[in-house]
Amino acid sequence: MKLGFIGLGIMGAPMAGHLIAAGHEVFAQSRSGVPPTLVDAGAIASKTATQVAQSADLMFIMVPDTPHVEEVLFGEHGIAKGLSPGKTVVDMSSISPIATKQFAQRIQALGCDYVDAPVSGGEVGAKAASLTIMVGATEEAFARVKPLFELMGKNITLVGDVGAGQTCKVANQIIVALNIEAVGEALLFAAKAGADPARVRQALMGGFAASRILEVHGERMIKRTFNPGFRIELHQKDLKLALEGAGALGLSLPHTASALQMMNSCAANGGAQLDHSSLVRALEIAANFQVAQA
Amino acid sequence: MKLGFIGLGIMGAPMAGHLIAAGHEVFAQSRSGVPPTLVDAGAIASKTATQVAQSADLMFIMVPDTPHVEEVLFGEHGIAKGLSPGKTVVDMSSISPIATKQFAQRIQALGCDYVDAPVSGGEVGAKAASLTIMVGATEEAFARVKPLFELMGKNITLVGDVGAGQTCKVANQIIVALNIEAVGEALLFAAKAGADPARVRQALMGGFAASRILEVHGERMIKRTFNPGFRIELHQKDLKLALEGAGALGLSLPHTASALQMMNSCAANGGAQLDHSSLVRALEIAANFQVAQA
Repeated sequence: MKLGFIGLGIMGAPMAGHLIAAGHEVFAQSRSGVPPTLVDAGAIASKTATQVAQSADLMFIMVPDTPHVEEVLFGEHGIAKGLSPGKTVVDMSSISPIATKQFAQRIQALGCDYVDAPVSGGEVGAKAASLTIMVGATEEAFARVKPLFELMGKNITLVGDVGAGQTCKVANQIIVALNIEAVGEALLFAAKAGADPARVRQALMGGFAASRILEVHGERMIKRTFNPGFRIELHQKDLKLALEGAGALGLSLPHTASALQMMNSCAANGGAQLDHSSLVRALEIAANFQVAQA
Repeated sequence: MKLGFIGLGIMGAPMAGHLIAAGHEVFAQSRSGVPPTLVDAGAIASKTATQVAQSADLMFIMVPDTPHVEEVLFGEHGIAKGLSPGKTVVDMSSISPIATKQFAQRIQALGCDYVDAPVSGGEVGAKAASLTIMVGATEEAFARVKPLFELMGKNITLVGDVGAGQTCKVANQIIVALNIEAVGEALLFAAKAGADPARVRQALMGGFAASRILEVHGERMIKRTFNPGFRIELHQKDLKLALEGAGALGLSLPHTASALQMMNSCAANGGAQLDHSSLVRALEIAANFQVAQA
């Protein structure tokens, strides 16, 4: 089976690299060209997404946002113009669940399968092939793509039909943002009350407050290591997707809305490029007090 | 060393039972009398807290709230009237960190040690001797009490000086409430978008959204098992403590404040006695939609 990979940024390049390293023939294309290291490894550089779709049986997309996926799929040099029945399109970008269902219908109308499979784990997970992959697909399409997912990730779950992967990713980003905010409020309270936030974090890890965020992001808040990681500006994008979805679905998500406002404040204070654990800065600025000193 | 235990409710009774079972002499007292099972086990029933303080070298308090601790310590028949220098008072109730520091000063002025050691783990943890115990004390007093804590709990941390235990417990309750709210928003979003919340929970457990709350309370939301557990009305008390502390410390804790409002809504809708995982009901009522059906 010939593969395609469109979008070779900090996530896409190492992910495509794992497919090549496993011996797959990979037709690659990216807005800024195919990195020489990938070509050296054996990637076949294609000029357009249309060419990739003509050459490959199954192709992955890994680009920043909903409009980029739309351009890759349906733009002037897009995938749709090169597809023929029986091929499979797998979008691993993190984009709108609503748009995903519309994109899928248009691709399915061409006799092809569409799979949404956003990831969590960032650049580190992409390089280490340890990404969490949340999949929306038919059972049949999932079975076809799963061995390839296993070259790129570790926790691979078929969540439901097309769109369910993106829905799950949005749910993930809601919890991550709100758990960061929760740890921020708790550590700020503890520090201002005169307790050592590091000991508090340690004590809380033994009980119901335990979380991956308390473990990893709590430590970042205490040690002031706000280099990304996952940037505030990307989490702003994800929470906007959540709220756009909430609006369309008729839901009220008060803490998600509030967390986005706090991230806006972080960005306004020069923190758009910092790790999302720096969400605690919005609380600190409001209180004129820090969890810990740098 | 002779021990005392004041407050023999659903938490205190099994905790005192563990001390007796380990062979300690325990002078016991409670507002509603000493349970016959404890007397049968060997507890020495005392009529007042003053008597307990006269008889015991080290005494535990386990009562519902700040005013109850104040009454036990400084009331007409309180501990203070029976203390003599060199004795140790250990308050394991969950109460105000600010009041705790004041209580400690008054007890220390009598030549005694004061230790605050609130717990997490509930009735189940009290019975199983698996409580998480968060301790505020001097190193010396902690070393004296630690072997006794080990008869009642498992994760035992000296967080800092007197008051730090209560501060840590408040931080714990902030995170637990806000993580429940986070899981509620995420699962409600996923369910309304048409995904299976059980599969979403499963997928999220593999990544940064993983938490004890997603594991335990997320499952409760999906299976609609809202029997307590830990009741909404108790968590309301704890969040009020957090906000009282925030006011005194000059902190803004926006999500803690909002979560308390949601718990008020849960209580207004008949849920004061339900498990705190039913916080999701406030979101569900607002959205006229449930994560799952009963």
